[in-house]
Amino acid sequence: MRIARVAHPSGPRFAVDRHGRWVFVDDPFAAELVTTGESVDAEDALLLAPVEPRVILGMAYNGSIEHRAKPPRAFLKSARTLAGPGDAIPIDAGRGPTVVEAELGIVIGGPAHHLSTEHALDAVLGYTAANDVGTPEQSAIDGFWTQTKNGENFSPIGPWIETEFDPFDASIALRVNGESVAEASTARLARNVVEILVYVTRFVALDAGDVIMAGCAGTSSVVDPGDTIEVEIAGIGVLGNSAVARR
Amino acid sequence: MRIARVAHPSGPRFAVDRHGRWVFVDDPFAAELVTTGESVDAEDALLLAPVEPRVILGMAYNGSIEHRAKPPRAFLKSARTLAGPGDAIPIDAGRGPTVVEAELGIVIGGPAHHLSTEHALDAVLGYTAANDVGTPEQSAIDGFWTQTKNGENFSPIGPWIETEFDPFDASIALRVNGESVAEASTARLARNVVEILVYVTRFVALDAGDVIMAGCAGTSSVVDPGDTIEVEIAGIGVLGNSAVARR
Repeated sequence: MRIARVAHPSGPRFAVDRHGRWVFVDDPFAAELVTTGESVDAEDALLLAPVEPRVILGMAYNGSIEHRAKPPRAFLKSARTLAGPGDAIPIDAGRGPTVVEAELGIVIGGPAHHLSTEHALDAVLGYTAANDVGTPEQSAIDGFWTQTKNGENFSPIGPWIETEFDPFDASIALRVNGESVAEASTARLARNVVEILVYVTRFVALDAGDVIMAGCAGTSSVVDPGDTIEVEIAGIGVLGNSAVARR
Repeated sequence: MRIARVAHPSGPRFAVDRHGRWVFVDDPFAAELVTTGESVDAEDALLLAPVEPRVILGMAYNGSIEHRAKPPRAFLKSARTLAGPGDAIPIDAGRGPTVVEAELGIVIGGPAHHLSTEHALDAVLGYTAANDVGTPEQSAIDGFWTQTKNGENFSPIGPWIETEFDPFDASIALRVNGESVAEASTARLARNVVEILVYVTRFVALDAGDVIMAGCAGTSSVVDPGDTIEVEIAGIGVLGNSAVARR
């Protein structure tokens, strides 16, 4: 099932897809989804970031089997870096190159603290496409990565959450201006989704709507103003954004 | 003026102090505060964390004049680590010592991005007492400080926001079990509040309710289950919390 967040005159609404329409639901995190009776045609709907996380985390050094030799590491991103499908990512020329990273986004469904391997996936509502944008020259300067990972709209996610999805061997593709620049599978990640959830929730309590970006398996590219960026995850969909010059 | 957030059967309410009562206001970030006509006696009020930040940041290496030799650095804390006056801080015996840090909390009043030195203070709603709790053995392991700074209730703030306050030479005292363990002034910080705001907002866009913990000028202590902790900032008030054993 797909869960989206749709722009609406009365404010953003959560919705599920049914026969080409987005059918509004009260609470996407409820055990049983309750539809409101309202819906919009999918063609007419403006999709927003599918959740509004209080906490966004990224996995560092998680892109290849070689990274298994290092311990897992995660960094926080400001919740205000959240962006949705179609949002423009401002490029700041003074920060060095801006790099987009196509990643799997793990969307938490409820309280998640000290998760066990056995029950880790129970805490997941579903998965989305994520773009962990940064300015890597700043990472070399600032070991906390605060300076690199928190630019405006540096955390696009979407276009929706897929609840029925196998996160262990999913294809991730990154396209810039329509051309494929990188392809990989989540099977290449040093730590898989269960290992990520067990590690992160040992140290950071998460809850409904929080997002972990699972790490970049080589699916990155420098982008410049004017570029279009697409993150495609097979079985989920395509998250499209553009790069613009900072005003 | 003091701005607090008060527990109420209808949900948390913002309030300002008038003659020993907390008088409810609609929006503490509005240019002109509008009271609702309701109030509670200050003696009867249960105070919560005075704001609910989307972004909490701490300043690293900002505790002494010597730190001026290093560039400023800031780290993000999970917004879910927020705690209020009286909240208990669970101590996890497996993480090494838990350390409390008495700090000035800067509460942002509205959009704050790329602040200039001249206008930085205009973005501040007021100041509060903050306790930047961590488990420093984890900092040595994890350079992102994700593992050290994000335990449950590791970011107490309160008891209220003081809007009329000189942040440049304010006394900070830390007491454990009623005994003074450290005293300092914000004048000892490597970077003052204006320098902090200019630095942080170059890289992280902030908005109403966000909080920056200004850094620890030696006002820290190891705490154990059963300890009471008080952070007092002259001109603001006393933020009291307790340490408990993790269940």
